[in-house]
Amino acid sequence: MEHPENNEAYKGLTVNAGVEQPSSVNPYLKRKVRRRELSVDEYVDGIRQGNITILSQAVTLVESVLPEHQAVAQEVIEKCLPYAGNSVRIGISGVPGAGKSTSIDVFGLHVLEKGGKLAVLAIDPSSERSRGSILGDKTRMEKLSVHPASFIRPSPSAGSLGGVARKTRETIILCEAAGFDKIFVETVGVGQSETAVHSMVDFFLLIQLAGTGDELQGIKRGIMEMADGIVINKADGNNIEKAQLAATQFRNALHLFPAPESGWTPQVLTYSGFYNLGVKEIWDMVYAYIAFVKANGYFEYRRNEQSKYWMYESINEQLRDSFYHHPVVAPLFRQKEQQVLQGELTSFVAAKELLDTYFRELRHD
Amino acid sequence: MEHPENNEAYKGLTVNAGVEQPSSVNPYLKRKVRRRELSVDEYVDGIRQGNITILSQAVTLVESVLPEHQAVAQEVIEKCLPYAGNSVRIGISGVPGAGKSTSIDVFGLHVLEKGGKLAVLAIDPSSERSRGSILGDKTRMEKLSVHPASFIRPSPSAGSLGGVARKTRETIILCEAAGFDKIFVETVGVGQSETAVHSMVDFFLLIQLAGTGDELQGIKRGIMEMADGIVINKADGNNIEKAQLAATQFRNALHLFPAPESGWTPQVLTYSGFYNLGVKEIWDMVYAYIAFVKANGYFEYRRNEQSKYWMYESINEQLRDSFYHHPVVAPLFRQKEQQVLQGELTSFVAAKELLDTYFRELRHD
Repeated sequence: MEHPENNEAYKGLTVNAGVEQPSSVNPYLKRKVRRRELSVDEYVDGIRQGNITILSQAVTLVESVLPEHQAVAQEVIEKCLPYAGNSVRIGISGVPGAGKSTSIDVFGLHVLEKGGKLAVLAIDPSSERSRGSILGDKTRMEKLSVHPASFIRPSPSAGSLGGVARKTRETIILCEAAGFDKIFVETVGVGQSETAVHSMVDFFLLIQLAGTGDELQGIKRGIMEMADGIVINKADGNNIEKAQLAATQFRNALHLFPAPESGWTPQVLTYSGFYNLGVKEIWDMVYAYIAFVKANGYFEYRRNEQSKYWMYESINEQLRDSFYHHPVVAPLFRQKEQQVLQGELTSFVAAKELLDTYFRELRHD
Repeated sequence: MEHPENNEAYKGLTVNAGVEQPSSVNPYLKRKVRRRELSVDEYVDGIRQGNITILSQAVTLVESVLPEHQAVAQEVIEKCLPYAGNSVRIGISGVPGAGKSTSIDVFGLHVLEKGGKLAVLAIDPSSERSRGSILGDKTRMEKLSVHPASFIRPSPSAGSLGGVARKTRETIILCEAAGFDKIFVETVGVGQSETAVHSMVDFFLLIQLAGTGDELQGIKRGIMEMADGIVINKADGNNIEKAQLAATQFRNALHLFPAPESGWTPQVLTYSGFYNLGVKEIWDMVYAYIAFVKANGYFEYRRNEQSKYWMYESINEQLRDSFYHHPVVAPLFRQKEQQVLQGELTSFVAAKELLDTYFRELRHD
């Protein structure tokens, strides 16, 4: 029997869960309803009171590329910053088909059983809002999306991974100021997003599947070493043995890597998102990890390292932007590459010539 | 019985193999012998004739930090560039204790059996010439270092990995122009050097050991995925079974990664460097790989990608240098970090403030 996850009938259901629909989608909104623009303090107060509509609007501002929106957003973020930080941030990565949305649905409901509030964010640099991103797709998190204590956003689209990562971190600040004590950050598992997500969460959870026979799905370079825990989905019915075999193979592979800085040995568990099996064990593990690293100081150390990392990432990205998009320098790249490939210039000399041009131009701007 | 590799008596033997000794080491050289400085053309002609002494002097120029030496070096490199490229470049990585030097000794002698010339270079950013680097240590490559067709250099010391990598690539150009058709580039396996080495070779060989029981030595993040081949050393005597078990574990682990771009499935072999067992099989594999990727176009494609990579690496490194060593900006980092850690500024705003200062300063330089 084909696994329900792969059943085409599940795709395409739409659930309107409270985010404003563009008028082109909602036929009843023939004319644009113009909201009164809020002041910075109104945003901040609304967020601190946990007002979801105002939080939503603020996040939309953060995601906007318009300079006037960005100016307001940065002020709101700055004022929310003192109230941020009091949460547990979990990164969840898995390739398409691994059952991530279904899993987040049951994970989210589980962690909300004991109370608190959960924000589910996503990082997918290829997403464009008008098409709907693969990630943060409420339609596949049916139960969670209607839970009153949840807040789900699709990935921002920002033109670059750096931009998407920054806006996600800023959204985390707003959510935490709004009282969300649990944050999920979802990512696809086939691009560079994992490094970004790993650098903004307290625990990085990797969702895998059992492969055909004894081969497992290829994992992108370096991801396995980032995982604080690996969970094998679809451990149900006829698939249980394969899932357990896969778990064993992952445990063996983890032995090949040096012990993580945290002092914690990453665990490999099996579960079934669709049938809600093994979910409690996963979250017992996550919370055990959090208690462990809070006790040994690694939790705070990791967050501090991440903050510094993002400052320098931001610097490096803007340094590169300034050079690689410089209107005088950028047209010269193709020619210099050709000269290097033809063996006319060494890479070093080609680089130097481009940089000389760049710094000369900066002086005269 | 303790493995000969670990026997202290083997360390510390000195073999004078033709590189000039500083006068402080060689008591017979009480006064400095000043060599006449060669012209650029004399260097280039000497190199093209395969004159090892002149090649050595040219490499010393390349490694020098003095601007006058660098100026001459760059001209020599530029004139050698048309004669470079006609070689096979093999990266060899392994943690200390894996028996790398002994292995390079037997590998080198093996590849020289059929003729040609072999240069053995090293990348070790922590080395300082006066202390002698761990790598490229002739004393441990006893037979190879006296082979007339070999040329062995310790790692350049250049203050940064980028500098060391560049000088190594430039040395490769000179060696190839001197007719060296086989290049080994050695690295330690515990730092960032592997990425650098992987980006300048045609085949990346990883030397591993069998661990205690069924655990293997930790491998630094991402190295295993870089390997075009993995070889388990010390497969001799009582250790053979363990080595074969380790090989099986590595083969299983390799299944977890996506198929390499080259189209070649990396192999795992066992051997004994000290007893010279299994060495032919390793090099049959390497040459089979080279034939394979030359046939499918990947060999040339990889070299082209590497050339472009180094141009952009050079650019990125110098962009960062310019910012991070700027006399006005650099003193501000600590304060900005503190503001971020105290939650006074977001990482993004802190970055922006530093960059504003930097670009303002550049305009007024």
